[in-house]
Amino acid sequence: MTCPWTRRYAQRMQGMSGSIIRELLKLTEQPDIISFAGGLPAPEVFPVAQFEAATQRVLANHGAQALQYSTTEGYRPLREYIVQKMSRYGIQTRPENVLITSGAQQALDLIGKVMLDPGDVILTEQPTYMGALQAWRAYQADYVTVPVDDDGICLDERFIEALRAGPKFMYILPNFQNPAGVTLSLERRRKLVQIADHYGIPIIEDDPYGDLRYEGEHLPPLIAMDADFQEETRPNGNGRSFTRGDVIYLGTFSKTLAPGLRLGWMVAPEEVIKRCVMAKQGMDLHTSTFSQMVAYEVARDGFLDEHKLLIRQVYRERRDVMLAAMEEHFPLGVYWTRPSGGLFLWVTLPDWMDAAELLKTAIENKVAFVPGAAFHPNASEGVGHNTARFNFSNAQPAQIEEGIRRLGQVLTRAMAEHHEDQIEPEPVLA
Amino acid sequence: MTCPWTRRYAQRMQGMSGSIIRELLKLTEQPDIISFAGGLPAPEVFPVAQFEAATQRVLANHGAQALQYSTTEGYRPLREYIVQKMSRYGIQTRPENVLITSGAQQALDLIGKVMLDPGDVILTEQPTYMGALQAWRAYQADYVTVPVDDDGICLDERFIEALRAGPKFMYILPNFQNPAGVTLSLERRRKLVQIADHYGIPIIEDDPYGDLRYEGEHLPPLIAMDADFQEETRPNGNGRSFTRGDVIYLGTFSKTLAPGLRLGWMVAPEEVIKRCVMAKQGMDLHTSTFSQMVAYEVARDGFLDEHKLLIRQVYRERRDVMLAAMEEHFPLGVYWTRPSGGLFLWVTLPDWMDAAELLKTAIENKVAFVPGAAFHPNASEGVGHNTARFNFSNAQPAQIEEGIRRLGQVLTRAMAEHHEDQIEPEPVLA
Repeated sequence: MTCPWTRRYAQRMQGMSGSIIRELLKLTEQPDIISFAGGLPAPEVFPVAQFEAATQRVLANHGAQALQYSTTEGYRPLREYIVQKMSRYGIQTRPENVLITSGAQQALDLIGKVMLDPGDVILTEQPTYMGALQAWRAYQADYVTVPVDDDGICLDERFIEALRAGPKFMYILPNFQNPAGVTLSLERRRKLVQIADHYGIPIIEDDPYGDLRYEGEHLPPLIAMDADFQEETRPNGNGRSFTRGDVIYLGTFSKTLAPGLRLGWMVAPEEVIKRCVMAKQGMDLHTSTFSQMVAYEVARDGFLDEHKLLIRQVYRERRDVMLAAMEEHFPLGVYWTRPSGGLFLWVTLPDWMDAAELLKTAIENKVAFVPGAAFHPNASEGVGHNTARFNFSNAQPAQIEEGIRRLGQVLTRAMAEHHEDQIEPEPVLA
Repeated sequence: MTCPWTRRYAQRMQGMSGSIIRELLKLTEQPDIISFAGGLPAPEVFPVAQFEAATQRVLANHGAQALQYSTTEGYRPLREYIVQKMSRYGIQTRPENVLITSGAQQALDLIGKVMLDPGDVILTEQPTYMGALQAWRAYQADYVTVPVDDDGICLDERFIEALRAGPKFMYILPNFQNPAGVTLSLERRRKLVQIADHYGIPIIEDDPYGDLRYEGEHLPPLIAMDADFQEETRPNGNGRSFTRGDVIYLGTFSKTLAPGLRLGWMVAPEEVIKRCVMAKQGMDLHTSTFSQMVAYEVARDGFLDEHKLLIRQVYRERRDVMLAAMEEHFPLGVYWTRPSGGLFLWVTLPDWMDAAELLKTAIENKVAFVPGAAFHPNASEGVGHNTARFNFSNAQPAQIEEGIRRLGQVLTRAMAEHHEDQIEPEPVLA
């Protein structure tokens, strides 16, 4: 007897079938597997003691408020904290421009709901964050993509060509991009903002990792560079304005505080925030009051700044261990990025190699990663089949070393077998 | 300079313009107003001490887990707890049939995303929960409505007529319905399940208030009655089955534990849960791990059962105070429901009276309620203009008494003025 709902699914669900990759990745949850597949922070760095103290204070002093319904916009002191935090990165805004979301993932869903009609085109980097594709698939978006290199999205003729498709917006991860780990250079940031202005295409700037830089100087976010550019080219007498809204900025507490809280935020013009608030009301009324108040209590008074130093130290070490192990164990013909921050690096295999096939052998050898195809909006055309994302934040250094060693063996064997296949066997004379 | 996003909104946003009611309701947030407008639990009954102890235990014993990403389906022990809790109401299911949502509101959004194409018809009670209309407006649904009376939705020729519109599903709040406070009788539950089966129209059963019954016997949920009916008419040899899925059941911790956590759940066939999991991944990845683990820690070991007794006692008293005050202060020609549970009662004014106009005068007299039009999917046709929802859970008894007294005066004056207008003034002879 069939379930009466199955023939009632919306058309948009046709684009949301379960993926083979997801099935494979379930295997990576076995405890004896060294997994570089997830995107998880290191649980060792969670400030559990600070959470204990903060929840006690919140419940003792504001217990009823913390457990009650609250406004869709979010807990006001947390929004004010975010305004203050962002001002240090050159983003001058007001609480009215900040919406608290249930993780930055919800901000992506909100943007889809408020902005996207079926068939609308989005310009993304290639590769790009899989979760954004998941969120926007539900709104039946189409994609034009532009490759990234070590300096982020390539602003050459391919970019201009993509803009000609008339995208509704472009989606950019400027810092230590998920999945490739690359960072948009200062020069390209400037150029991107100018081209976007020229073509009138607004930008979604997704910045989950900006705080996790392990070397070099912090680069200004696109939203700040856009405000500078507007003020230079069309001064309005009021100084820089962030409410023109050529750029919507997304942030999160998931990588610096704790992902389990599901807390992110969006910075946008007040008019857009109001629309998003209307949409969010229908989605979850508001983000957990309890999570918001506890996060605020942990983060205020500068704790997060201190804590970031610890996270950076731990992740920098793990990145270095992974890079050194790859250098030692990966065979010639395999390439990888060297991120200055964030949680991920990106591996490119020889073109004849299929990363999903490699994952099967890797899992047999108790090590895992994510094949890169899922990060390509147009993966059905075979793009990205030989790429893979590696997370270096979650596993301990010794595990990283061991996991990469095992993968090196798997890769070396695969290369050798391929090489043998290439050599014509001598004809056997009858 | 206009914001570049405003001309980029999706078509679905046209149905989501801000409401005048919402603007009016902002006025009700002034501290000196006695408000019956919200749907808030009484903060006095929140088990703050239990939350303090539970968060300490969770963080001390499972701190890293509570702060980490977790599965989209939800925290397994919480899903098992829900299975156990629901079995007492005759709903036999498995954790695989339970999805934890960010409040029951998210379950409504999920159902919209997974099921609704633009123009799909939903059958609802009239009046019905405003939040469901908000959630589904984003999916451009149309509505057919059937009035409720004291025994819930009327299963007469109007219901059959509505079914002929071919709704994708019907949306039913069987217990102490929001907003009307009425409860679907046992006889109608049986009949509803039979008709739904006959016409092949599945049911969304939304049950946020089922635990809050102040008198009379708990009535079996539709999902359980449907399983009984299926087993009687088409026994399959395996006993009652809840996985046929003619009914999807929605529950929440918002009314019994705390709404600030944003925790609800959905019971559905595994196939539907899988689809919803895919959709939820794109929406917020998962519901706050921290909230889920803390809620489980508070609720387990029977605490919630004890706690419900306290809530029932407090709300029963408040309901009784409101009913008695209405009896004493409201003029003839005003009617209201007498709910056996829940948080709301429903007032019907004389047909010539407009509840939104009345609210303005009420606010001047520092008392507030929600005009009923917003609970009518087809309110633009003028339906429900003379109705209003009153919440009795949030205000203290003395405030309830005082607020209803003030409203009684406002109503009595309005009636008197109307009556004067009706009397033709005697012609003045020149």
